[in-house]
Amino acid sequence: MVRLAPSSLYVHSPNCDYAEHTVSVGNVWKAVNTGALHFFNNKLHAPFCFFIAQKVKKDVGDVSILVNNAGVITAADLLSTQDHQIEKMFEVNTLAHFWTTRAFLPAMMSNNHGHIVTVASGAGSFMVAYCSSKFAAVGFHKALTEELSTLGKDGIKTTCLSPVFINTGFIKNPSTRLGKILEVEEVVEALMEGILTNQKMVFVPPHLSIALLSEMLFPERAVALLKKLTNAKFDAVVGQRSTQ
Amino acid sequence: MVRLAPSSLYVHSPNCDYAEHTVSVGNVWKAVNTGALHFFNNKLHAPFCFFIAQKVKKDVGDVSILVNNAGVITAADLLSTQDHQIEKMFEVNTLAHFWTTRAFLPAMMSNNHGHIVTVASGAGSFMVAYCSSKFAAVGFHKALTEELSTLGKDGIKTTCLSPVFINTGFIKNPSTRLGKILEVEEVVEALMEGILTNQKMVFVPPHLSIALLSEMLFPERAVALLKKLTNAKFDAVVGQRSTQ
Repeated sequence: MVRLAPSSLYVHSPNCDYAEHTVSVGNVWKAVNTGALHFFNNKLHAPFCFFIAQKVKKDVGDVSILVNNAGVITAADLLSTQDHQIEKMFEVNTLAHFWTTRAFLPAMMSNNHGHIVTVASGAGSFMVAYCSSKFAAVGFHKALTEELSTLGKDGIKTTCLSPVFINTGFIKNPSTRLGKILEVEEVVEALMEGILTNQKMVFVPPHLSIALLSEMLFPERAVALLKKLTNAKFDAVVGQRSTQ
Repeated sequence: MVRLAPSSLYVHSPNCDYAEHTVSVGNVWKAVNTGALHFFNNKLHAPFCFFIAQKVKKDVGDVSILVNNAGVITAADLLSTQDHQIEKMFEVNTLAHFWTTRAFLPAMMSNNHGHIVTVASGAGSFMVAYCSSKFAAVGFHKALTEELSTLGKDGIKTTCLSPVFINTGFIKNPSTRLGKILEVEEVVEALMEGILTNQKMVFVPPHLSIALLSEMLFPERAVALLKKLTNAKFDAVVGQRSTQ
């Protein structure tokens, strides 16, 4: 099991305050293992992130590794999802990456040292907003990586994690022919390996990257057939048109 | 020049009210050719989109083709961009796709007939928020396409446009070795062709798809070198740290 030195890690995650999450990699487990956002709730705005950044800096010094891990989901088709649920998914799964990164990046820039980790997803249908918000996270990672490179900040590394179903209760009753449902430990292990070896993209399971590549290489009907064969399933609300 | 029948098109675009944009494909030019968001401004919320949808339906009947084209941009590095500029890019470039689509999709679902067009982008560094918001638009398109297929709504088509620099004034002084700066007409022509032939992804220029594919196939250093060779440039604010 790969471990990081204490106080080198800040995990932006639901159901906790920052203090629990600046100690060791064991907390990444907790973080990945938690469900919807509660305690951060409406505090995920820029001023709050700056406040937290100041507090963390005072308590433990500059943060070397920022893990943007928090996520919320509504498993429902587009018309069954409510407006406020869509907004919340973008606030937590996308915009919060901006606020936390903007809070911790200036010190990393000054030191030309740091690592920003983006937790994305390999999600698909019946989760249009979730999927879109996680695509945004990948775009954030890619553009940030390119920007840091253009600015010559080669001491600041970036890693993006893209997992399929994880056994966290985040999605109810998931199943897929792509392989077994992932355990939290193996996702954390793969991510830690990715961080320590400066991998830009970490796919779990690794053959997820081949599935994404095939989307670009194969004709549309072949891709649709392949997706059908993977037979990804989970509990979702379908056909309950939102009134909000 | 490909043309669509009058009143078959609804273009969600800045600087106009809906009425200008329900007549002919000529308006797509205007739409692509406009700059930042002004008249829609804070009205891009779900209730306003539902109101517009009802008004359009009353005036011209069910909309067959919805073109989500509106976009705003701040060309600056991540720390020089202000919080409200980041929020605005997500409101217009991403969330508005949800509000307009949720307004017009129910009638398309009832008729099993329609076409939803998503205007994305091939953007890169010094525009982390813009790039992320446009990745979100691609994710929206992909997940919506998959969802409609799973729901058996094969009469509702989807197309996603991904262009590089267009000569609209949207970005100041763009240049790239990838080819000449695109004219609005050629982008509209490619998009119309894509809509009428039900293409899922329309890349302009077409070799943009090869560049994206190479990102997945080649090692990181080779991709970085290729990007350097394309030498994409434009005016951007860099190093002016935001105080908001």
